[in-house]
Amino acid sequence: MIRAIDGGITAPSGFRAAGVACGIKRAPAAGQPAALDLALVTPAAPASAAGVFTTNRAVAAPVVLSREQLRRSGGRASAIVINSGCANACTGAGGDAVARQMAEAAAAAVGCAVDEVLVASTGVIGVALDITKVRAGVASAARALGVDGSAAATRAIMTTDPFPKSYAVEVETAHGTFRVGGMAKGSGMIEPRMATMIGVLTTDAAVAPAVLSRALTRVCDETFNAITVDGECSTNDCVFALASGVSGVTVADADISALVEGLRAVAGHLAREIVRGGEGATKLVTITVTGAASVADARLAARTVANSPLVKTAIHGGDPNWGRLVAAAGRSGAEFAIGRASVSIGDVPLFVMGVPHDERADDAARVLANRDITITIDVGAGGSGEATMWTCDLSAEYVRINGEYRT
Amino acid sequence: MIRAIDGGITAPSGFRAAGVACGIKRAPAAGQPAALDLALVTPAAPASAAGVFTTNRAVAAPVVLSREQLRRSGGRASAIVINSGCANACTGAGGDAVARQMAEAAAAAVGCAVDEVLVASTGVIGVALDITKVRAGVASAARALGVDGSAAATRAIMTTDPFPKSYAVEVETAHGTFRVGGMAKGSGMIEPRMATMIGVLTTDAAVAPAVLSRALTRVCDETFNAITVDGECSTNDCVFALASGVSGVTVADADISALVEGLRAVAGHLAREIVRGGEGATKLVTITVTGAASVADARLAARTVANSPLVKTAIHGGDPNWGRLVAAAGRSGAEFAIGRASVSIGDVPLFVMGVPHDERADDAARVLANRDITITIDVGAGGSGEATMWTCDLSAEYVRINGEYRT
Repeated sequence: MIRAIDGGITAPSGFRAAGVACGIKRAPAAGQPAALDLALVTPAAPASAAGVFTTNRAVAAPVVLSREQLRRSGGRASAIVINSGCANACTGAGGDAVARQMAEAAAAAVGCAVDEVLVASTGVIGVALDITKVRAGVASAARALGVDGSAAATRAIMTTDPFPKSYAVEVETAHGTFRVGGMAKGSGMIEPRMATMIGVLTTDAAVAPAVLSRALTRVCDETFNAITVDGECSTNDCVFALASGVSGVTVADADISALVEGLRAVAGHLAREIVRGGEGATKLVTITVTGAASVADARLAARTVANSPLVKTAIHGGDPNWGRLVAAAGRSGAEFAIGRASVSIGDVPLFVMGVPHDERADDAARVLANRDITITIDVGAGGSGEATMWTCDLSAEYVRINGEYRT
Repeated sequence: MIRAIDGGITAPSGFRAAGVACGIKRAPAAGQPAALDLALVTPAAPASAAGVFTTNRAVAAPVVLSREQLRRSGGRASAIVINSGCANACTGAGGDAVARQMAEAAAAAVGCAVDEVLVASTGVIGVALDITKVRAGVASAARALGVDGSAAATRAIMTTDPFPKSYAVEVETAHGTFRVGGMAKGSGMIEPRMATMIGVLTTDAAVAPAVLSRALTRVCDETFNAITVDGECSTNDCVFALASGVSGVTVADADISALVEGLRAVAGHLAREIVRGGEGATKLVTITVTGAASVADARLAARTVANSPLVKTAIHGGDPNWGRLVAAAGRSGAEFAIGRASVSIGDVPLFVMGVPHDERADDAARVLANRDITITIDVGAGGSGEATMWTCDLSAEYVRINGEYRT
């Protein structure tokens, strides 16, 4: 059984966190408090660690380093340090050195091996990260570490996110109760110039690194990798998971279902919050594809529909335009049989086994007036392949945010 | 040698055309002339014919029929009939019958075999096409056929295109001179609900059907298939080519280069005009990818950049945001080496062999103020793969057009 609880990354036992301001983000207006821009998360003892990273081949220095760290440490970590305001991406050999120095600073501050530090950065691309500011921030964050530091850490990884994203659950199993917590930042891009998704998941279950990695990969496919704001994939995307083991509940390789469910509950919530906070977004749209020849086909069709500008603008305008849904699924490359295909908006069928039902358009338009919308598409291939993607609408505000000349 | 000449599809000898109003499009305001909505194109005698069609699996009835007609006739056609205002897509078995009746009506009106008629439709999806109106339109168009009918035919295939698209060239070869003409419609979608691209190319060269088909496919890859407004692919897209042979210049299988060049000149011009007339477009952007491991990789990277909402909004806003160009190329799936990658906007290098040159940002911003913009990306894979795509910027007007509730 899973139930939501208060808190975020420090809700599971054995984790402390801090968020501080060290001047990487531009100075706020006079009289305003300094913007938080550096987060530190530490387990009480070296924890099992896993990571999922961007598939973009233009990959940022902190992503390259964290991937290596996990390999070198054999999946153990004693600290995660994340800065916002500068992505340390497209910064050449100098950027690689800065990412390394950031890990060294955190290792010195918390007293662990350098290989046991994971790093992440989010913010402007192509600008050098000031290591002096990072060092000051890490030292100050290490002093501020506490079980009450979750909210500050969550704010410190934000760029232009409209709200912080944090969540935690308690998982009851036959062997005892453990907790999963998490924080994430999403796609706000005026200053960072990129949608950068960063997530940290924590649990007090006892999990071997390889098992944690397997669970994280599986959960990310159904959560963080199943959302889209605009189809972009950044140079800096990464999700980390840490397991402290403090709860005393061990997750064995043979049955990871409780861990997967706990991680999925937290990651799924955070992923949907990222979409809700997408640039210019006014609606959260759940797109489910059924009847596909395979799960891969279902994902392909769902992703194509979720990224279709014509679908996203129609939803923004409240137009129950099933023709655009059919056309997007049809061009996705997934097996598609128009004579057996169906489309519903909410519970209103608009196209059933190849036949239009435009007489239901007014009912569907009423569904589209809601903030949360479900769209179901049967691609008519007669298979059992199913997949769900979450997306948002496309508004003129998205264009305004991303088209504004940077200052 | 190729030179532009006046006229469009009837510029080559042996073609007549007409465009008439038959009431498929909504009645215009009182006092306005009726909207042209049916075009007819005929060669003087059965012509060699070829077609390239949408790859969307949600395919419209006229596309299915025209594909079959080309197969049944062995690549001969005596008429092309195209209506606007109704796509005859997602219309089930009834729609198939109407497409067939449209061909029968044209065959009766021009006096040819039914199999020698090609049909196309563009407009609203999921609405039945009124065959009574089509029959009246075909009869009236057959009476109006003339060598001066090109302009009316070009207007009759428009939906919400902001301007008609027509072009013609003369090709001088060692064996004599022949002509190539063409018309196209692009992506205007308020009423049609889809970006539907339809093109007709004519030539008075003497070309066997198989040779014409080969030349058309090759030319489409570099022209109509190398443009994007919003990454959408419609249920109705098609391009037809007809060769009358009236010029007496024969294009032999062994050397199709003059034909390809002529077709490319016309199709390339029409394709770029479609982008210029894209919904909400204010700029024509030419994206060239070089240094790719293969031509396929170069096309993949160019297409991903051309469809990136972040790239398209940055161009709209005049922001020389090379980070978005690097990130889009990096996520495309093409081989990409950031340390050897370079990006230029116009002739201004902003990222050279992995090193940012933000000091040139003001120069690049001046380039972006133009209506025609060239972007060059070397993906650093060290290969000779190159490709060019044409796209437009993404404006709030695009969202307004496509988000407006249909009336």
